[in-house]
Amino acid sequence: MAKKHYSFYVDTEITVKKGDQIFLNKKRIDLIRNIRYSGSILSASKTMSMSYQQAWTFIKEMNELSPLPIVTRQRGGSNGGGAIVTPYGLDLIEKYLRMEQIQNENLVSLNQVLDGCFL
Amino acid sequence: MAKKHYSFYVDTEITVKKGDQIFLNKKRIDLIRNIRYSGSILSASKTMSMSYQQAWTFIKEMNELSPLPIVTRQRGGSNGGGAIVTPYGLDLIEKYLRMEQIQNENLVSLNQVLDGCFL
Repeated sequence: MAKKHYSFYVDTEITVKKGDQIFLNKKRIDLIRNIRYSGSILSASKTMSMSYQQAWTFIKEMNELSPLPIVTRQRGGSNGGGAIVTPYGLDLIEKYLRMEQIQNENLVSLNQVLDGCFL
Repeated sequence: MAKKHYSFYVDTEITVKKGDQIFLNKKRIDLIRNIRYSGSILSASKTMSMSYQQAWTFIKEMNELSPLPIVTRQRGGSNGGGAIVTPYGLDLIEKYLRMEQIQNENLVSLNQVLDGCFL
């Protein structure tokens, strides 16, 4: 049976919440990283096949929940002005990547629990 | 500001996948547990405010991906027959809860990464 060609594995996604609201998750961190590389919310959203409106909504939600701004917009210039990731935003990216590293180590333990389950 | 009354915290959900298909996640495990307690897919779906169709789709997907059946239906009786969770299904519930325990311990390390981020 074809389905036997794939293995079962554990997957986890790290979400940082405030109350029941999402502050950071993988997609939002990817968005911030893409804004950092492109200097533009529009370019970042295109890279991620996301609408500009969706990208801007994510940025707005993060900035509102955050104690410090994460992405700031620069007025003027092409594309209606660029966007820059603040030092605080860069720190959050680093922290999220660090959490992913820690979580990846823990995934080994989680997958061990399933050992023998699918043989 | 009201938003300061809530703290930031890390949340993770454990998903067991096969290829890119979801096999188990928290909602599916809760569904199996509710079927175990009620002996009925209909009752379990009502408890979870889920349509019977959605519940049955989840069960069908899990049974198809699984090397052994997880939930089996019994024909006849009231409610169009009951449903029982197989010993293999019970084992998966236990394994998932064990993974949640391990993950909860790891959440402490993950939250430590954010220390000082939101002060």
